[in-house]
Amino acid sequence: MIKVAIIGYGNLGRGVERSLKQHKDMELVGVYTRRAPETVQTEGAQAFTMDQLKDKKGEIDVCILCGGSATDLPTQTPEWAHLFNTIDSFDTHAKIPEHFAKVDQVAKENQTTSIISTGWDPGLFSLNRLYAQSILPVGETNTFWGKGVSQGHSDALRRINGVADAVQYTVPNTDVIEKLKAGEQVNLTTRDKHFRECFVVLDDGANADKIREAIVSMPNYFAEYDTEVHFISQAELDQNHQAMPHGGTVLHTGTTHENTKQVIEYKLQLESNPEFTASVLVAYARACVRLAKEKQFGAYTVLDIAPKYLSDRTDEELRKELL
Amino acid sequence: MIKVAIIGYGNLGRGVERSLKQHKDMELVGVYTRRAPETVQTEGAQAFTMDQLKDKKGEIDVCILCGGSATDLPTQTPEWAHLFNTIDSFDTHAKIPEHFAKVDQVAKENQTTSIISTGWDPGLFSLNRLYAQSILPVGETNTFWGKGVSQGHSDALRRINGVADAVQYTVPNTDVIEKLKAGEQVNLTTRDKHFRECFVVLDDGANADKIREAIVSMPNYFAEYDTEVHFISQAELDQNHQAMPHGGTVLHTGTTHENTKQVIEYKLQLESNPEFTASVLVAYARACVRLAKEKQFGAYTVLDIAPKYLSDRTDEELRKELL
Repeated sequence: MIKVAIIGYGNLGRGVERSLKQHKDMELVGVYTRRAPETVQTEGAQAFTMDQLKDKKGEIDVCILCGGSATDLPTQTPEWAHLFNTIDSFDTHAKIPEHFAKVDQVAKENQTTSIISTGWDPGLFSLNRLYAQSILPVGETNTFWGKGVSQGHSDALRRINGVADAVQYTVPNTDVIEKLKAGEQVNLTTRDKHFRECFVVLDDGANADKIREAIVSMPNYFAEYDTEVHFISQAELDQNHQAMPHGGTVLHTGTTHENTKQVIEYKLQLESNPEFTASVLVAYARACVRLAKEKQFGAYTVLDIAPKYLSDRTDEELRKELL
Repeated sequence: MIKVAIIGYGNLGRGVERSLKQHKDMELVGVYTRRAPETVQTEGAQAFTMDQLKDKKGEIDVCILCGGSATDLPTQTPEWAHLFNTIDSFDTHAKIPEHFAKVDQVAKENQTTSIISTGWDPGLFSLNRLYAQSILPVGETNTFWGKGVSQGHSDALRRINGVADAVQYTVPNTDVIEKLKAGEQVNLTTRDKHFRECFVVLDDGANADKIREAIVSMPNYFAEYDTEVHFISQAELDQNHQAMPHGGTVLHTGTTHENTKQVIEYKLQLESNPEFTASVLVAYARACVRLAKEKQFGAYTVLDIAPKYLSDRTDEELRKELL
């Protein structure tokens, strides 16, 4: 059995706990948290303090880091890679090279294995961009996200004065996707690819028109998009907008000889974004332990890892059952 | 530059020649054929006899074998793996373990690297089954093929007495695909997943009704499916049914916690099946050469190969551009 620890227990950590129950070769040995462990409501796992993790070297095969990319993972991953094999879902795109270098150094010095930036984007979408572009180098890759909840955009709405609560959905332009799949040449601007739908609960006495204007003109978040704003009650938000669906499409349209069109499409439709991301982390946790057993130490990403490492089946079984 | 040889020059070999022109780091050094070389109409490449290939050890980095799975590849791949790194698209599912074992032994003894059973199914579809099943172990994978030309079924039609020529399209049931994606529980029989559409040219004086009956009742090929037969002229067949489109979908519908549905879909829409298959072979030819340089000798399949090996970009570029 592969012994797994969860570091940090929010939606993602809970997703990892749930995913581990679906894998027969893995067991959860504990949740490690900065909070008082007795206040953490897990679904069965024991919770411990971060300090207690330090004494567990040799007892844990891999730690799945479930903190955030903004402030947790940049320090936590290098810190815990001193002692353990680790997986994280670091997704601040511009800082991935720096994060990789830092973790790689620690992991190599301490003979541990760390897989960073795992999940679906970065992660499975990155893989699909790589496969498609390598196979059809004359072509174009477009990524569409949604329909799904964007935490960053929802947070941006909630920071506006007069907004009590809000949820933002990123919605892909399916007409554009169909045109691309049909082989049409489309010049795409940011506005063409996605639109944004906001469900906003106002504070008492807030001015709806002013807030709508503040939203649709907000640079970087909404100004570059067509944005629809719906004002609803807190009760309606609580009832209809608490799920965390997401998904998206990586669409590669290439040509081989002359104008022979070839389309590769990879699409995810997720009823729970954190549970799916957690499921990807768990499969790569297995890969991480296998790499470490082969003494392949250092930092890796999904691009470096042979697909078979994700499976609990033998090479013979995989060839027989999947090829 | 990676020096590539093509062994066998039919539709697939021509596809490889075309694909190689799209890759800046690879060059085609020759086409090797059992025919008289001067009778082979390439698109620029020089043609040579198979005998001439034997003297080229050390001058060719990888041979792409473009013969058929029935009789060519079972002997050709082990034969050429004595001297060269090789790629093939061996797709007789039941014999893959045997083919793997034979090629693996030759390649290990002779310190060469061989990637077998490459293409899209087996190949990219196999990869996607593996990723999806590893990430969502509670779930179900269905593969749908088409709409596309099945050579095997077209051949079966042409063997019927009274049939002058024929093309068969495998057509997936898109209603079923949509139901599965919507999370419906569907009990699928063979008949539900695909239907078969036949375009048949009759010999003079042949009995259409009898031939229709012979087709729809043919076991293994058509009896288990709903089959539509259209009788057309040779001129119409030549004009409208000479292209070789194909494609298909690997659909994995899984659940994470309780009944939270997660759908992973991988879909190919190919205007030319042989050119796309050739493009996959070429990307894995690059991987083959890289594995051989690392002295990773023996037989491999797509399941064993880290995605980054398919690309001509550096690890740093891939992390920066794709993650």
